[in-house]
Amino acid sequence: MIIALKKEIRKEEREKLISWLESYGVKTHISEGEFQTVIGLVGDTTRIDTDLISGLEIVQSVTRISEPFKKANRKFHPDDTVIRVTDEVAFGGGCFQIIAGPCSVESEDQVETIARAVKKSGAGMLRGGAFKPRTSPYDFQGLHGEGIRILLEVKRRTGMPVITEIMDIAHLPLFEQVDVIQVGARNMQNFELLKELGRIDKPILLKRGLANNMKELLMSAEYIMAGGNEQVILCERGVRTFETYTRNTLDLSAVAVLHELSHLPVVVDPSHATGAARYVKPMAMAAAACGADGLMIEVHNDPPHALCDGPQSLTPEQFDDVVGAVRKVRAAIA
Amino acid sequence: MIIALKKEIRKEEREKLISWLESYGVKTHISEGEFQTVIGLVGDTTRIDTDLISGLEIVQSVTRISEPFKKANRKFHPDDTVIRVTDEVAFGGGCFQIIAGPCSVESEDQVETIARAVKKSGAGMLRGGAFKPRTSPYDFQGLHGEGIRILLEVKRRTGMPVITEIMDIAHLPLFEQVDVIQVGARNMQNFELLKELGRIDKPILLKRGLANNMKELLMSAEYIMAGGNEQVILCERGVRTFETYTRNTLDLSAVAVLHELSHLPVVVDPSHATGAARYVKPMAMAAAACGADGLMIEVHNDPPHALCDGPQSLTPEQFDDVVGAVRKVRAAIA
Amino acid sequence: MIIALKKEIRKEEREKLISWLESYGVKTHISEGEFQTVIGLVGDTTRIDTDLISGLEIVQSVTRISEPFKKANRKFHPDDTVIRVTDEVAFGGGCFQIIAGPCSVESEDQVETIARAVKKSGAGMLRGGAFKPRTSPYDFQGLHGEGIRILLEVKRRTGMPVITEIMDIAHLPLFEQVDVIQVGARNMQNFELLKELGRIDKPILLKRGLANNMKELLMSAEYIMAGGNEQVILCERGVRTFETYTRNTLDLSAVAVLHELSHLPVVVDPSHATGAARYVKPMAMAAAACGADGLMIEVHNDPPHALCDGPQSLTPEQFDDVVGAVRKVRAAIA
Amino acid sequence: MIIALKKEIRKEEREKLISWLESYGVKTHISEGEFQTVIGLVGDTTRIDTDLISGLEIVQSVTRISEPFKKANRKFHPDDTVIRVTDEVAFGGGCFQIIAGPCSVESEDQVETIARAVKKSGAGMLRGGAFKPRTSPYDFQGLHGEGIRILLEVKRRTGMPVITEIMDIAHLPLFEQVDVIQVGARNMQNFELLKELGRIDKPILLKRGLANNMKELLMSAEYIMAGGNEQVILCERGVRTFETYTRNTLDLSAVAVLHELSHLPVVVDPSHATGAARYVKPMAMAAAACGADGLMIEVHNDPPHALCDGPQSLTPEQFDDVVGAVRKVRAAIA
Repeated sequence: MIIALKKEIRKEEREKLISWLESYGVKTHISEGEFQTVIGLVGDTTRIDTDLISGLEIVQSVTRISEPFKKANRKFHPDDTVIRVTDEVAFGGGCFQIIAGPCSVESEDQVETIARAVKKSGAGMLRGGAFKPRTSPYDFQGLHGEGIRILLEVKRRTGMPVITEIMDIAHLPLFEQVDVIQVGARNMQNFELLKELGRIDKPILLKRGLANNMKELLMSAEYIMAGGNEQVILCERGVRTFETYTRNTLDLSAVAVLHELSHLPVVVDPSHATGAARYVKPMAMAAAACGADGLMIEVHNDPPHALCDGPQSLTPEQFDDVVGAVRKVRAAIA
Repeated sequence: MIIALKKEIRKEEREKLISWLESYGVKTHISEGEFQTVIGLVGDTTRIDTDLISGLEIVQSVTRISEPFKKANRKFHPDDTVIRVTDEVAFGGGCFQIIAGPCSVESEDQVETIARAVKKSGAGMLRGGAFKPRTSPYDFQGLHGEGIRILLEVKRRTGMPVITEIMDIAHLPLFEQVDVIQVGARNMQNFELLKELGRIDKPILLKRGLANNMKELLMSAEYIMAGGNEQVILCERGVRTFETYTRNTLDLSAVAVLHELSHLPVVVDPSHATGAARYVKPMAMAAAACGADGLMIEVHNDPPHALCDGPQSLTPEQFDDVVGAVRKVRAAIA
Repeated sequence: MIIALKKEIRKEEREKLISWLESYGVKTHISEGEFQTVIGLVGDTTRIDTDLISGLEIVQSVTRISEPFKKANRKFHPDDTVIRVTDEVAFGGGCFQIIAGPCSVESEDQVETIARAVKKSGAGMLRGGAFKPRTSPYDFQGLHGEGIRILLEVKRRTGMPVITEIMDIAHLPLFEQVDVIQVGARNMQNFELLKELGRIDKPILLKRGLANNMKELLMSAEYIMAGGNEQVILCERGVRTFETYTRNTLDLSAVAVLHELSHLPVVVDPSHATGAARYVKPMAMAAAACGADGLMIEVHNDPPHALCDGPQSLTPEQFDDVVGAVRKVRAAIA
Repeated sequence: MIIALKKEIRKEEREKLISWLESYGVKTHISEGEFQTVIGLVGDTTRIDTDLISGLEIVQSVTRISEPFKKANRKFHPDDTVIRVTDEVAFGGGCFQIIAGPCSVESEDQVETIARAVKKSGAGMLRGGAFKPRTSPYDFQGLHGEGIRILLEVKRRTGMPVITEIMDIAHLPLFEQVDVIQVGARNMQNFELLKELGRIDKPILLKRGLANNMKELLMSAEYIMAGGNEQVILCERGVRTFETYTRNTLDLSAVAVLHELSHLPVVVDPSHATGAARYVKPMAMAAAACGADGLMIEVHNDPPHALCDGPQSLTPEQFDDVVGAVRKVRAAIA
């Protein structure tokens, strides 16, 4: 961290700042120029709040050289983290998984039919929403506990591990048998929820917020990891832009950047990002080509007849085609 | 709501859709053109999920004519809602209040000193953070229960009603004596929290999310109101843009737009929006000029010496100057 | 400017960089820490390209301490620039002007009627588009040369100075009698146009681009000023955000920030920013309250009957009401 | 197009609107509901200005069903357009090309060395900037006419067709021997330039603006095509988001969406989008995987020693590696 001080500050003020900085266990190196004094900080600066320093009257600018995240940082953990959900299902370090299933859990029949179909096509994990974050209080909010019960029953019957979204700490007991807990985009900075998930021993799939950058995503991963739970899977699901033909804009450069900055696996969700079934295949292929550790894809068993089918869900047949194309891309780049 | 169907759809599909729509209690009016069939919906369409309809294969486009919010809608509640916090302190319907206080509660002394100063200048309500949403898990997170205890003690001594931010439902019992509960920008779409706050009988100040539009803000207000708690104060606190000289971009047109669409009072927070003390005065004056029902301003008693003082806090003297200027503007437009 | 070098770089590389930096006429100050070498630059760094430096293999980060603009910078020109259009009409340094007129010039009658009305209400300057930037090639593109002829004829009859938008250098000869030339938001970074306008002796009103920040706006002003034409009026007209109830989001904090950073006058255009006539009055009042040096407002003589009247134009009566309200605000803050 | 009228409008107003609409050659179909009147428009509505209609007092909402672009629209031109630059070099309809070369033309030696290297690796076309759009007037602006002379000399020696950026109509005569003219992101809505390029007979590569959506990109293509020049290559080069680890955010879903909406070829520029050489390879592979018709990649012959080398340029060796990886991906998806 480099702190540039303003001109004409009194020596006592400067020394007060330095002794405060050193109380964090970092070393300081002062460089007095003709016009400017620059303080260099060496050591672990993650615990130093740059907002606080840049707010000081005597400070002109603060530049962080090292990243503010530590446990999620590849610098301190050079090898890829591999997150093992079951003996067969793992993410990262060369392990690639496709998570598939309906947007919302509707019935046991629906979930089981989809689960059997996507498993046959090659999906390793089953998804399905029991708690649904909806913009309107009048829209369908999910089956809640009953939805989780259905997922677990289908897990028992098919052997597929399951992932589903949590929206509040109070619901945590319902997730005990769930294999991976998902934190949705709108809760990426629900810090109390993140802290609580840092205290459990279960993989967390953390989705990037709609208008959050990658540093913020990694800081949210850091919240979970700082609590002791280092099993975090990062998920790129599109960011808000001015584009209207797609629901959000899928940021595939996030795969390369997050792999460089962090050792955590990165999964891509092309269904939510594009909001349209017909764009899922090209985006899934592109995600595989740039090195994603997995995909999360919405599949519905009966889209043309079901009224509550979203425009972004594939049929099992379409999903099978996507899996085939993704495999070809992965084989080519291996 | 107007639904345009695609060409060449089968009659049964169309009728299936219509009977499903009518099951929501709305009337449909079908217009068959040479090239296009258009369905008009009349009645209360708030419960109809447009995403769901636009996802149907047979649908070309869906246009909502009326707003999806109802209880927050001025159309159904033409008069301004006045939210009475105490006998003296109210927001809306011509009542204007300034909320002031430190970003974080640090000590009883600090809060009391600031409270006495801002009260003297004309602030009607005291703010202070006990739970702090911070991007980094290593930054100061607030004094939690002890912070609320301090706020309530200062309330007892000064007679000022208090507002503080909630970050999780589980903390709700701590807020029993708090006068107004604040929902921060990052929790604007924490729907489980909003639902819970809809079940209590206490004013809620709801801050607009960093990348959320006004429809989403009003839908979040609707979540609280749908639960039975209609005492919602909307708060504009800046949105994320590409600007870097200010922390966020204060959207003052929100005051005019929200007043048109809703009967709820609108408060403006120039401190968080700009992130710089020197911009608070002009933005506070502008907010008053365009009809805001209140202001929320950060004040710290000893900015130059306190290390944890943010760049956006005013001194009590600066605050006094801002209040004077705001009063002049309000007098001019009365 | 502060340049932090990477660890373990060879001495020759460092010296090569330093001698290159010094060839720009700046002094360098090297601070060698245990882990890091930091180079401080003192002098005029505006000519040093930070992108170029940060691209070098040996460089870890570059932080600009001073702003990259010079002629537009208040630091080197502490007093407000006053831009005198005529003996009576000036912007900046306490001089406040309202520019009013139709979006597009349609006919001599239309423009003269509006000009006489707005002049009576207190507008100091007449606006009207002759060249219209339209997203679609099939939309009305303006009357071009004939539009400018009409404007100049109305100027002759009413004595009002005129402002109109230029879209291409090739049209410059048509603007000889125009008092102020406007550069629209979409041309804010049309650098060849800016350079050419830097060679003439006439005030330029430079609109902020739809997704540009203030540093970029000031750099575009610098393009004009670097060529020798220092008569630049900055104009805030809203930026692109995710909001949909307003066309763009008016950034009034730009008035305070630009006044701090630059000596140039700042005018606000509430008509284009909001895109709705009913929001023009509150936003005009807010702009006056925070210190704008002028307003630019669309007025049309016959909105309810004219088919090509935009939703953002005021009637002359509404305009008169806005001027009255703006005057009250300005009197209050004087 | 569907126009919903407000309640309680007079019959004459409605008929005035209808006869005006029909003057554009479209048929209208009126549907009178109990609460609302809806006008459906059938025929070519591209020439109807929706802004103008939605501004009318009597109109509640306007929904465009068909796209506002016509010549760029796949609906009216189902087959892919193939743009032939030379006998060997074509874009679209299965033809894939890599354009490579330095950011700026510096010298004949530099350009020739790079050209020979990238040609050997498989690039079909040479790029190099002669006119450089720079945010600061003090940054290097390119060699202008001399830059184009160098490009054409290297074209003569190597046989590679060349592409370079135009910034102003006045420079057009210099581009006579250039094979493809590039319109940069900042000029995507420089409508006068687009109109002029519509009058020539030469392929235009049109880059998407930094904050523009795909409809706006296609409308800008329409400007060129409406003038008679239908040889437009669309180029995705990243959009502005809140991300800071990459310069812009590459929107690869644009490839799929633009291919669906338009018959024009789509090229991807991963160098400018990411701003970092190390992200070019994964993004180039992803672009190939999702069906891009070409890539545009910056290559510099001597990055570690050249001071004006940008962080986004590859060495010829790195470029060779990227081409190999892209070929594997293309072979896999063929």
